[in-house]
Amino acid sequence: MEKFEITILGCGAALPTPHHFCSSQIVNIREKLFLVDCAEGVQMQLRRSRLKFSNINNIFISHLHGDHCLGLIGLISTFSLLGRTSTLHVWAPNPLKELFQPQIDFHCQGLGFTVQLHEIDTRKRDIIFEDRSVTIETIPLKHRIPCCGYLFREKPLPRHIKRDVIDAYNIPTCYINNIKAGMDFTLPDGEIIPNSILTNPADPTRSYAYCSDTMFAPTNAEQLHNVDLLYHEATFKKDQELLSKKTFHSTTQQAAEMARLSNAKQLMIGHFSARYKNEEELLNECKETFQNTILAEENKCIKL
Amino acid sequence: MEKFEITILGCGAALPTPHHFCSSQIVNIREKLFLVDCAEGVQMQLRRSRLKFSNINNIFISHLHGDHCLGLIGLISTFSLLGRTSTLHVWAPNPLKELFQPQIDFHCQGLGFTVQLHEIDTRKRDIIFEDRSVTIETIPLKHRIPCCGYLFREKPLPRHIKRDVIDAYNIPTCYINNIKAGMDFTLPDGEIIPNSILTNPADPTRSYAYCSDTMFAPTNAEQLHNVDLLYHEATFKKDQELLSKKTFHSTTQQAAEMARLSNAKQLMIGHFSARYKNEEELLNECKETFQNTILAEENKCIKL
Repeated sequence: MEKFEITILGCGAALPTPHHFCSSQIVNIREKLFLVDCAEGVQMQLRRSRLKFSNINNIFISHLHGDHCLGLIGLISTFSLLGRTSTLHVWAPNPLKELFQPQIDFHCQGLGFTVQLHEIDTRKRDIIFEDRSVTIETIPLKHRIPCCGYLFREKPLPRHIKRDVIDAYNIPTCYINNIKAGMDFTLPDGEIIPNSILTNPADPTRSYAYCSDTMFAPTNAEQLHNVDLLYHEATFKKDQELLSKKTFHSTTQQAAEMARLSNAKQLMIGHFSARYKNEEELLNECKETFQNTILAEENKCIKL
Repeated sequence: MEKFEITILGCGAALPTPHHFCSSQIVNIREKLFLVDCAEGVQMQLRRSRLKFSNINNIFISHLHGDHCLGLIGLISTFSLLGRTSTLHVWAPNPLKELFQPQIDFHCQGLGFTVQLHEIDTRKRDIIFEDRSVTIETIPLKHRIPCCGYLFREKPLPRHIKRDVIDAYNIPTCYINNIKAGMDFTLPDGEIIPNSILTNPADPTRSYAYCSDTMFAPTNAEQLHNVDLLYHEATFKKDQELLSKKTFHSTTQQAAEMARLSNAKQLMIGHFSARYKNEEELLNECKETFQNTILAEENKCIKL
């Protein structure tokens, strides 16, 4: 299987604690690293994770609350000190440029690379990134300021060659990529060998959705349908539904309900309020609604 | 002895590593906490130190390179979430206001307290802070951008009452503070009891100097004369004198020479370049010139 992993760098809510950094994670798709949110301390956490800084070319920030973006300037400075030359793309809602361009101009003078800032319209679903391996869509979230999640969808993978069949028909190497892509093969005598004889099905494509910070937004369930792993904030316990509504956050029960409505395969909760000492209680509340739930945790790596 | 302690929160140079946060430390003078430099991650380090956030009312930033100031906005946000109401004073060179006021306005909306930004002229020595316990002076440093160190001088302490003598002369309590301050006491019959009979000398006053980042600046030795503890950056080993000059930093040998010229009682070096794995080698180089040298280290607390 090609690599599709999520590494949690931080999963605390606004107040960092001795146990939690604020929100940041790395989505590693075939050694391309996508940084999702960029909290204070993200560069220290990246060092600890031993992930390669230079494999990060795209940073996706959900919204501009400090606990999701204050690590950006330090990270850019460090990229510069490490001799980076390739363009860095940063995606976030308004007013990304107004807020960060002056800081980049001041702190990162003489950068050897370009920082391209992309402002996102968080009100709609939109594919904002696409390469050979993945598409990344925005997920409209409901928070106090413009905010979106990100949905990573792996692109269809090549079918698996049946080596012995290929050899038996003596098929030249130059046809292999087309056959992996699904094409049949025509023998010199005109006989057509259907692709299903030559290959086994491709691995199923995988998907990952990141939803933080948001109040309960069930209209997103359609977009998240059948997602392999849903990261959803669960800032509060279920008895704090009023507070969570007031602060535009979700409870455990609401996060689990989103996983159920989306028919997600697995739910990972995070953005834990510093008030909770025992996060197992949050986990158990989720499991009442959605059994296959796990807790986010710094340095945890989930392989899809 | 009244408390006068320095706690190191971070002592790495520009690149944070798994071992070092960037520059920040707390000077604790009688439970008033002065934060000196304010690097990314300072609020996490403060949590670990178990020092009381609410006892910090003054932050002194040496200069506006990211590794000395990028923790400021996160810290102010956290103060706000913790319900702070008292004014926070932040001291730093130009362009402190231009750089940080827009960020405070954006990230810290609805603050329950005032953040007062004070811009410092780093070209001259100046007493910028004074209260009952301490004066704080700027130390002009030589770096690529305006930069100053800070010299904390304890104010003269009260003399120690000889309780038995006071009792023997039956001196009323209302005179005690004056006697501690050095006054003689006149008995009802006109006899004058000299203060030296009534008290023992006060504890000697203590001083702490913070010098980071700077190239070798021997003209500061006069200001630092007899300082109890000199923190001085030693970014490079002594064989990197050219590089240190080019980058406006100091070598181990230069830091030690500053301690020797200043007749400091003790030297603590920090701002270690990430290139050095074994900092004992830096220490040993300093000791060749100035024996009483120690290494800064995260969470180390030095009592003066």
